[in-house]
Amino acid sequence: MIQDINGAIEALLRPNSIAVIGVSRREDSIGHKIFQNLLSQSFKGRVFPVNPKADVISGIKVYPSVSHIPESVDLAVMVIPADYILDAAEECGVKGVKAIIVISAGFAEAGNKGAELQRKLVAVCRRYGIRLIGPNCMGVLNTDPIVSMNATFSHVFPPHGNIAMATQSGALGLVILEYAKNLGIGLSTFVSVGNRADVSSNDLLEYWCQDPATGVIMLYLESFGNPKKFARLARAISANKPIVAVKSGRSAAGSRAAASHTGALATVDIAADALFAQTGIIRVDTLEQLFDVSNVLAHQPLPRGSRVAILTNGGGPGAMAADACTAHGLELPALSDATLEGLKMLLPSRASRTNPVDITDAGAEEYRGALMLLADDDNVDAVIVIFIPPVFARSEDVAAVIMDLSTEFYRRGKTLLSSFMGQRGCLSGSPIPAGGSSVPSFAFPESAVYALARARDYNLYRQKPCGMIPELKDIDRERVQKILDNALPGWLLAKDVYAILDAYGIRSLAPTLVTSVDEALNAAQALGYPVVLKLDSATIIHKTDFGGVVLDIRSPQELRQAYDMMMQRLTSAGRLAEVDGMNIQKMVSQGIEVIAGVAHDDVFGPLMLFGLGGIYTELFKDAVTRIHPLTDVDATEMVHSVKAYKLLEGFRGSPPADIPVIEELLLRLSALVTDFPQIKELDLNPVKVFAAGNGCTVVDARILV
Amino acid sequence: MIQDINGAIEALLRPNSIAVIGVSRREDSIGHKIFQNLLSQSFKGRVFPVNPKADVISGIKVYPSVSHIPESVDLAVMVIPADYILDAAEECGVKGVKAIIVISAGFAEAGNKGAELQRKLVAVCRRYGIRLIGPNCMGVLNTDPIVSMNATFSHVFPPHGNIAMATQSGALGLVILEYAKNLGIGLSTFVSVGNRADVSSNDLLEYWCQDPATGVIMLYLESFGNPKKFARLARAISANKPIVAVKSGRSAAGSRAAASHTGALATVDIAADALFAQTGIIRVDTLEQLFDVSNVLAHQPLPRGSRVAILTNGGGPGAMAADACTAHGLELPALSDATLEGLKMLLPSRASRTNPVDITDAGAEEYRGALMLLADDDNVDAVIVIFIPPVFARSEDVAAVIMDLSTEFYRRGKTLLSSFMGQRGCLSGSPIPAGGSSVPSFAFPESAVYALARARDYNLYRQKPCGMIPELKDIDRERVQKILDNALPGWLLAKDVYAILDAYGIRSLAPTLVTSVDEALNAAQALGYPVVLKLDSATIIHKTDFGGVVLDIRSPQELRQAYDMMMQRLTSAGRLAEVDGMNIQKMVSQGIEVIAGVAHDDVFGPLMLFGLGGIYTELFKDAVTRIHPLTDVDATEMVHSVKAYKLLEGFRGSPPADIPVIEELLLRLSALVTDFPQIKELDLNPVKVFAAGNGCTVVDARILV
Repeated sequence: MIQDINGAIEALLRPNSIAVIGVSRREDSIGHKIFQNLLSQSFKGRVFPVNPKADVISGIKVYPSVSHIPESVDLAVMVIPADYILDAAEECGVKGVKAIIVISAGFAEAGNKGAELQRKLVAVCRRYGIRLIGPNCMGVLNTDPIVSMNATFSHVFPPHGNIAMATQSGALGLVILEYAKNLGIGLSTFVSVGNRADVSSNDLLEYWCQDPATGVIMLYLESFGNPKKFARLARAISANKPIVAVKSGRSAAGSRAAASHTGALATVDIAADALFAQTGIIRVDTLEQLFDVSNVLAHQPLPRGSRVAILTNGGGPGAMAADACTAHGLELPALSDATLEGLKMLLPSRASRTNPVDITDAGAEEYRGALMLLADDDNVDAVIVIFIPPVFARSEDVAAVIMDLSTEFYRRGKTLLSSFMGQRGCLSGSPIPAGGSSVPSFAFPESAVYALARARDYNLYRQKPCGMIPELKDIDRERVQKILDNALPGWLLAKDVYAILDAYGIRSLAPTLVTSVDEALNAAQALGYPVVLKLDSATIIHKTDFGGVVLDIRSPQELRQAYDMMMQRLTSAGRLAEVDGMNIQKMVSQGIEVIAGVAHDDVFGPLMLFGLGGIYTELFKDAVTRIHPLTDVDATEMVHSVKAYKLLEGFRGSPPADIPVIEELLLRLSALVTDFPQIKELDLNPVKVFAAGNGCTVVDARILV
Repeated sequence: MIQDINGAIEALLRPNSIAVIGVSRREDSIGHKIFQNLLSQSFKGRVFPVNPKADVISGIKVYPSVSHIPESVDLAVMVIPADYILDAAEECGVKGVKAIIVISAGFAEAGNKGAELQRKLVAVCRRYGIRLIGPNCMGVLNTDPIVSMNATFSHVFPPHGNIAMATQSGALGLVILEYAKNLGIGLSTFVSVGNRADVSSNDLLEYWCQDPATGVIMLYLESFGNPKKFARLARAISANKPIVAVKSGRSAAGSRAAASHTGALATVDIAADALFAQTGIIRVDTLEQLFDVSNVLAHQPLPRGSRVAILTNGGGPGAMAADACTAHGLELPALSDATLEGLKMLLPSRASRTNPVDITDAGAEEYRGALMLLADDDNVDAVIVIFIPPVFARSEDVAAVIMDLSTEFYRRGKTLLSSFMGQRGCLSGSPIPAGGSSVPSFAFPESAVYALARARDYNLYRQKPCGMIPELKDIDRERVQKILDNALPGWLLAKDVYAILDAYGIRSLAPTLVTSVDEALNAAQALGYPVVLKLDSATIIHKTDFGGVVLDIRSPQELRQAYDMMMQRLTSAGRLAEVDGMNIQKMVSQGIEVIAGVAHDDVFGPLMLFGLGGIYTELFKDAVTRIHPLTDVDATEMVHSVKAYKLLEGFRGSPPADIPVIEELLLRLSALVTDFPQIKELDLNPVKVFAAGNGCTVVDARILV
């Protein structure tokens, strides 16, 4: 029996009754703690402690087992040793419990025996249609006043708000709750997913997508269970609700750390970056950034553009904020004439009226006046207010002015942030107005700028057209099917590679294979000079190491010379036996070299790659990766996002390259991999791209099946 | 009369007596505030309030003017309107006051009239040998218990410590004091330098260099007054004491903000970066980083290397710290067998014993045991201890263990940092041991990693050989002198350019200028094919825009064709009249293209540039700048620090390039600019660098005088 997901998650996050299985009398036990947290937070449903060895705990009747509880139980929280879990779960099944949270450790994270136990636990749950969180987690929490559930072992209960959070690390869960509470950042629900034996981040995403109490989703990820599903969900959710994620395991060392305590696969981080970029997830690097960005998204309208006005009472912090804006791609526009005129009337002459506006030692009323001008300034999308408490000024007065005007900004769709040097979280001391606006405050202006920039990036993502996978013409699937049916696993023969490309409408300079200098001369004659001579060998991979590529051969004499030279080198290196022949190809001196390809990742499946050819990709890491399949928007973005894009646009008097044709090439590769998933790796390196309208042609290619 | 600097700064920072000129009865006045701060902080010398209109303030006798004070006065703090300052300064001069701090605004920052007033003020001070801080500043502060001076208008007095701080922004000064106090970070002295009419950051650097109370120097800079002196001082100080600096004005917007409130010149930030790199100054981007890094430097030994062990009780934070290490070039080494063996005995089986070491839910004693093992592990240079308070564990116990072992780490020269998730500053609750060690704590592990990485960078700088400016052979100064004596200001003629390079031992492919196709053919014959044909014109700067460069011409036919084609294009573009002729040059197809040059910055003087040729520098910004003159170490670093350095090392089977000869080329350019400062700009673009031992040759060059 498979329940509908949201109903089951509802039982986990909004249960009417909870059994805590394993409530010890010992106050320093986890079970006791969870029970106490449910009581002290005044959970609005019923709580039943379960312990076969106690009658009464904290003055409340204890049941020897779940089956003894006289009422129905929606959720069971288990805090008993791993060995007792199966029996308890079985009993829950019989009782009709809808969901179980297993706090206890000793499962997949603890080795093979634990993994076996975990599999059995899942089997029991499946049999009874029970949804399971954990094992090895710290519990769940719901701040909705009509639920008010702290089913975690942290005594920290964060304020009610619209940010939902899932974490793959229990330890970070503790930190997150503490931080949210200290900063006054409101959460809706919080889930520590632990080993994710059943309920995964994906299930929670599906729930939060529908959950009216949740406006922003925060994730701490260490690995992806089902990246394809995650990508699909995230794409759908990002269109309406922002997802902010921190993912550890960027580095080999980080992956090792993440893997060692969850048993999760260390995935290629580049694929995660691609997934985040394609699905609109806001990836941040630190927990601090996670909160800073979520705070802005939870309380402020998305910045409509990149134009920021800075209002400060100190030049130094204003300058630092301006620097940070530039570093994050935000602009400081010139203010409108009306604003400048207004500021001139308003501010003392020593004030600086250009952006950043430095009101110097003027006070709360000048802040009000300047903010009102900026609210009406069409040149401005967002305002960062910096306030350094001078000797006698009252921070509260300035904070009150900002809060007072925040609804005006909200109404105009302008983002308003503040940096009260030292104060983190939200401006306090005033209620959040009906519009839901509150003004996030940052201890340092640089953090405000970072958070604003990421919110702007997210809005840019939302404004993008929703991509589609276009129908491509001139595709001959059957021809490729036939070639692959007859191919042996491994690198395909050159003729097959070029035939496959041709069948998918990808133009290439198919080379002529020759095995003697006379054949070479004939082939060159047929192609027309200049030509290129290339060594063909299945075992000599880096041809250049043996001088195996000679470009721009302009005459038969030069060809003969190059051919003989190459044979000599191979002979003296003792590698002649590995040579399958020589390839003669037409020399293409025009055009810009790019590379395109497909690589395979065990977790993410095919990854699509694009970069500039030559040494750019290798030396400058100037390449971009996306997850298969590509939409037309993905393809366009790939080509635009390499640093060397300027080369394609036409650099230093050279004509612009045929960019649409590169985008189409990427889409054709994506279609090829969609149709033939047995293609494990595909390299087009290089592809020559010609001036706009003249297309491109693949110069060298290989395919692994 | 010029006093010796340190004596004069002594009067500013360690005065025996202070007159506060302009102490108003109004409690909300700046003058009153400063007077109160001196009293409430129990300044150990004498304080005399001055106000012609009051007899007694706060129960203390007030003097109508400085001249009425019956005792000698070392320092006068002035808080009177700008118009009264000159008279007051004059009076101070007569009285024999040694130093003045002018808090008042209304000077250079306020326009021409104020600038004039400031010049007059400086003149008065010079006449009497008075040193002046400000005007337009927030004062100075000395935490030394035998001084205990708060001569600022901030009521915040930070704890006593060994960090000295100078700030060019008063507003940031307020923030800095507050932040230092909140984090418990100890300062020695603090100076808000304001308009720097007399005492500059340079003067303070000289003082702090000698000051035994100061171990670390923090700077907030907006501009450089005298960068050459700053560089010289900073280089000398960095060899012993670290300087950590944040400089605003990185961006155009930031410069505008910084300039508008101090009147400082907006300098090219790239030059500042070069200056910091060459002098060992640790440049950080944010105030938070400024404190984080200074905190580590003030309390911990410098990390001897990059090998970091992470000790955590939560896998998630450990993984995030590991990622941050990798991002900042720190390593997580394998731990020694002894450590692994010890951890196996010590920790529960579910713990992860590889680096990062995750002790899971073990407690203070396990932290102690693990730390002792890591203290003795020769594979480890630094340890970051992460502690997430679990439900029942006591943070204080773990903190006590860390503090307890900190002396052991200090004795072994190992850096020890902690992240107590949420606790910033230093671990509290235990006295700083005699060794001066205390354990900095960070709210998030990523910040600890960042600070550690910068301390490591600084130690790498200190370990570098101290560079020297080598004597170069084959230099013919007189020949260049003669050329420049006869040259007109502007771009030099090609023949002069190549003669100058030759005189400084720089090999180039001097071209042959021709004005007809026959001359071209003769020149090519003499040089030998292949050749290059280049348009020569003083006004057509971007030759490639007109197809003005044809490479690899292999025969007289090709040369004639290229010549005719170029003339045709110029004719049809109507630019023929601007052509001075054509240059024929030997074609060099071998070698890697680099560029080298000198640019001129108004503040910093000559800037030396190096990068890879072609589009690398322009498209990837892969170039490096240093300030003139270069030491041999600078030259080596320049060549090594471009991203494309791998190309020079030998990439993909190509032989390594002649790197020493590039370094020498840079030193020769530096010598040329030293000898002939009238050279405003010099471009060698490109220079072809050949395989090791084969030198390099300049292909194109221009010089502006």
